[in-house]
Amino acid sequence: MGDLIGTAVEGALYYAARDEFARIKCLTAPPEQRVALYADVARLNTLYMIARAGSGHIGSSFSSLDIVSWLYTLEMDSAAGDCYFSSKGHDAPGLYAVLTAEGLLAEDQIHRLRRLGGLPGHPDVRIAGMNANTGSLGMGISKAKGMAIARRLLAQRGRIFVLTGDGELQEGQIWESLLSAANLGLGEIVAIVDHNKIQSDFSVNRTSSLGDLVAKFRAFGWNVQRCDGHDITALAAALRTLEQDPARPKVIIADTIKGRGVSFMEGTSIDSDVEMFRFHSGAPQANDYKRAAQELIDRCNARLASLRAPMLRLEVVENTAAPAVAVTHTSQRLFPAYTAALIAAAERDPRLVVLDADLIVDMGLVPFSERFPTRFVECGIAEMDMVSQAGAMARQGLLPIVHSFACFLSTRPNEQIYNNASEASKVVYIGGLAGVIPGGPGHSHQGIRDIAALRGIPGLVLVEPSCPAEVAPLLDWALTEHTGSSYLRMTSIPYAVPFVLPADYRPSPGRGVVLTDGADVVLITYGMVMLSEAVKAADLLRARGLQLRVINLPWLNLLDRAWLASELAGVRALCVLDNHYLDGGVGEFILAAVAELGLTDSPRCCRFAIQGLPPCGSNDEVLRAVGLDAPSLASAIAKWLGQ
Amino acid sequence: MGDLIGTAVEGALYYAARDEFARIKCLTAPPEQRVALYADVARLNTLYMIARAGSGHIGSSFSSLDIVSWLYTLEMDSAAGDCYFSSKGHDAPGLYAVLTAEGLLAEDQIHRLRRLGGLPGHPDVRIAGMNANTGSLGMGISKAKGMAIARRLLAQRGRIFVLTGDGELQEGQIWESLLSAANLGLGEIVAIVDHNKIQSDFSVNRTSSLGDLVAKFRAFGWNVQRCDGHDITALAAALRTLEQDPARPKVIIADTIKGRGVSFMEGTSIDSDVEMFRFHSGAPQANDYKRAAQELIDRCNARLASLRAPMLRLEVVENTAAPAVAVTHTSQRLFPAYTAALIAAAERDPRLVVLDADLIVDMGLVPFSERFPTRFVECGIAEMDMVSQAGAMARQGLLPIVHSFACFLSTRPNEQIYNNASEASKVVYIGGLAGVIPGGPGHSHQGIRDIAALRGIPGLVLVEPSCPAEVAPLLDWALTEHTGSSYLRMTSIPYAVPFVLPADYRPSPGRGVVLTDGADVVLITYGMVMLSEAVKAADLLRARGLQLRVINLPWLNLLDRAWLASELAGVRALCVLDNHYLDGGVGEFILAAVAELGLTDSPRCCRFAIQGLPPCGSNDEVLRAVGLDAPSLASAIAKWLGQ
Repeated sequence: MGDLIGTAVEGALYYAARDEFARIKCLTAPPEQRVALYADVARLNTLYMIARAGSGHIGSSFSSLDIVSWLYTLEMDSAAGDCYFSSKGHDAPGLYAVLTAEGLLAEDQIHRLRRLGGLPGHPDVRIAGMNANTGSLGMGISKAKGMAIARRLLAQRGRIFVLTGDGELQEGQIWESLLSAANLGLGEIVAIVDHNKIQSDFSVNRTSSLGDLVAKFRAFGWNVQRCDGHDITALAAALRTLEQDPARPKVIIADTIKGRGVSFMEGTSIDSDVEMFRFHSGAPQANDYKRAAQELIDRCNARLASLRAPMLRLEVVENTAAPAVAVTHTSQRLFPAYTAALIAAAERDPRLVVLDADLIVDMGLVPFSERFPTRFVECGIAEMDMVSQAGAMARQGLLPIVHSFACFLSTRPNEQIYNNASEASKVVYIGGLAGVIPGGPGHSHQGIRDIAALRGIPGLVLVEPSCPAEVAPLLDWALTEHTGSSYLRMTSIPYAVPFVLPADYRPSPGRGVVLTDGADVVLITYGMVMLSEAVKAADLLRARGLQLRVINLPWLNLLDRAWLASELAGVRALCVLDNHYLDGGVGEFILAAVAELGLTDSPRCCRFAIQGLPPCGSNDEVLRAVGLDAPSLASAIAKWLGQ
Repeated sequence: MGDLIGTAVEGALYYAARDEFARIKCLTAPPEQRVALYADVARLNTLYMIARAGSGHIGSSFSSLDIVSWLYTLEMDSAAGDCYFSSKGHDAPGLYAVLTAEGLLAEDQIHRLRRLGGLPGHPDVRIAGMNANTGSLGMGISKAKGMAIARRLLAQRGRIFVLTGDGELQEGQIWESLLSAANLGLGEIVAIVDHNKIQSDFSVNRTSSLGDLVAKFRAFGWNVQRCDGHDITALAAALRTLEQDPARPKVIIADTIKGRGVSFMEGTSIDSDVEMFRFHSGAPQANDYKRAAQELIDRCNARLASLRAPMLRLEVVENTAAPAVAVTHTSQRLFPAYTAALIAAAERDPRLVVLDADLIVDMGLVPFSERFPTRFVECGIAEMDMVSQAGAMARQGLLPIVHSFACFLSTRPNEQIYNNASEASKVVYIGGLAGVIPGGPGHSHQGIRDIAALRGIPGLVLVEPSCPAEVAPLLDWALTEHTGSSYLRMTSIPYAVPFVLPADYRPSPGRGVVLTDGADVVLITYGMVMLSEAVKAADLLRARGLQLRVINLPWLNLLDRAWLASELAGVRALCVLDNHYLDGGVGEFILAAVAELGLTDSPRCCRFAIQGLPPCGSNDEVLRAVGLDAPSLASAIAKWLGQ
């Protein structure tokens, strides 16, 4: 039944059970008051989920929750075929709160945000009530069109509500998708722009201003209304106005406030475009959680009191959640080393310019942008545009360095990277968030396909630093020694690294460096996560009497075959470990070379890599699920060798 | 000095030498008359190049030639840093005609359009006077922005003129790129839309109407003028008006006529949106060439006469050009077989729907679109949008088949294909124009990176039919037997196929079929071109005493390892042949499996594939240049085996 909570206490987390939502929906009160209350309780549950998960998008969930609560409790008629999904997808926790409140999703799932078998960080159709996989931006209106065309062919009805972000409107696919919706008269589509004015770190105006959004949508033939996205009366009125023209696709530009509902989390609490918004993603600090929960609880209770209804009853859970990313005293991070190496390189070479796609904080670029403001180009969420700009800059004599997450950078502008390569212009690409962990954001953000997607590009050398000490040497190699283009694949999470590179080590193209001596088996891998797991696996196997020689090969598509042959001399077996899908990974690249080497006493060969879509979960859960944590690896290698 | 030509005769080709352009520029006449004459002579030279090459884009070159002639002869000041490039790039022959006329490109190059060492089918910066690699659509304004930002940093000046198509405006990257140009105030950029109203096959209105273009550009913050793109006085006036606002990026919507200058090639000769435009690409028939040349010569001479100037002097060349694609009585084509198989499948399965991105003719879809108009969705040049729509349709219960060229389909919507796979929706992708030939269009159109770019996608099976007889079985497997998604890689050119599949052959997942018996060497490859060359190479090697067993493996990322082991038993060597880059190709996939098989008597292994950007040229030239024609292969294999 829950408890009546007056004062939130530190160390406790609070959420409302489904019954409380049901009670709110039945209160005798005007609909806008009921929905406002419902949305605030959903905010409390969203906050609970994110605090418990240790990460998640608060700002975007909160800005959209009045809209989503209105749609699910008042506007949509699922029996008539109405449906909803979010194109931005970052607001998944808010949507989960509403889906559980509505009984469309099992209630106990809210305890398992971003955990294995729980609710993924971004929408996935495997979860009840979710109608599209999103999180990779800009696809929503295309999907709504596909649904609409299919339903017409299948003689099915219903409105399709699709929520987009505003930063998301910087993606070209949005505008690509608007054109035919108008031409085909897909009036059953209602897009709602959650226009909260803030992207991942800074304001939309600072990042890449959208200008006059109403004029833009109107010019693309859409029927547009703009209103306060926290005022459900205004939202409903806007929709009724749009419905007077049934044949045209509809869009509501909903003016919202990022972080809406908790005063100090609201985007309006930021003084200027220069200030960073702190609640886009990540978990609230314990103190912030308590303050935010208290504010939401107080407002809900005040609303209930004004309606002469009983106070909110809440479930209380002890906050035992570990942070999503465990940081220990041995944890190392690549990006601070990258930031330092980048600035040092920029001091040396005035041709160096930096391009970013709305990930200035994650990619470690704030110091560069402050130190060299004229040499920093913020492109917004527009990866294709960014990459083609970089190619042209290189042709003019500059040395551009392009930044995004690996999952996006290797795929969205894939043809543009090839086009640059065809001009033989030199561009350095930096792919952050590479690899299968962090596991919380889910598959849209797991960069485990980038090696395959980029390796067929002539002259593009792919490298991945194993630890902070290797970042500057590889970046400097890419900038000063290599004549062509390159791609640096970078782990974003802090990680406890159980090895150190030899003191005199310098990366040598196509050659690896031995991290643990071992005469039985050569294990080749790359990057901070896999090398750490491999070194730990070597320890475990040593106890079983198997000597594993772990080799860091930072070159993902360059191989010195003579070096490889010498490393393989006299060993029983070779394993290659990929923080990537098996297909098109480094293992395939190396094993093909082994076959061509034609060694007289060829070692047994095998690969460990990701096969099939990886799950969402904590980092430990995900590594174990894909069999790439040290214990799984040690067992698998021992079993493979019959030991 | 050239000849005075009154009447064009069949079998002859005509072009004007540079001197004639110089003479025209010095005529005492109003500038608009000189430019009109210059542009018509450039059209004659363009027609010459395309007729001689056997293929090329007439329509788009002709529609843009008044604009390009105006820019190069009157408007641009290269000393002041003005520069020009075409974003669509299909109009390269027209631009080459102007560049040679202006002395910016060696004059003798016009005889070598689409030939090895000559002028590529699409722009390439290796050619004098070309400022960007284009041909893959939508990148031009991004490139102009990169140039502008770089020049500002380098304290360089000059206007950047970039021509776009109108169909090209369907690409999302265009709209993505417009946003920041306005925000950054890049007033030195002048985009010109060659608004000729016709895409590759049909009208823009029929394909995917652009609506009110002026309103669209204006809503994106650009300064817009619209005028007649064949009236240089109007073009100049539009530019002067735009220049009154120096800080805003500028766009001229130039209303043009596709095929302008030859009455029967003009787009306005088409009666309705239903009618196909015949002069987008390909070479004119001999009779069409003669008529067109006559019309241009007559008009030039009439203009010269009205100015009391001597007649045009023309060089005459015997037309000995072979067609770009030789068709013999043994030539086979995949697409007619595909069309038939598709329609048969659609008859059986009402869920089947077809999506196309402005390649309805090339992809063999006209009969389907006529037979099943409601199940055919023309998406325009909007590959990302098409793929995301298809994913949503599949989620609604339809069975979508998505079409484009391999080079575009595997790269532009790369992330969207992965997103569909993450939803486990079943979509069939058809990539036409796969492989290194045709060699005429150049690297933007050579589909030799698709296997690498797509293979890291879970559940997506890649297949390639070897000949028309294998198309229906593979398509039917993809549609009815395979539960996941698949990608059919298809050769577009006719090819003389020197083998037949066994009468009782049915494709079996992961297994190949032997085409030529041979006990010494196993050669595995796929697709019509490589298998044909391999079988011919086997004939050549047999004469040298080497028995080559050529195996057709239509499964590009599925392998039955037991089958492979049995095929390799007792052979000396294994070669894998890739109509693809070496990196990420099928060879790598198979050789990695060989290494893992750990055969006790492992054969020697090697791969033949494309390494480095392939050249542009005739099909024979290109195959030879990359070492994948039968004689090169036979020599290389014999040399490798010391035979």
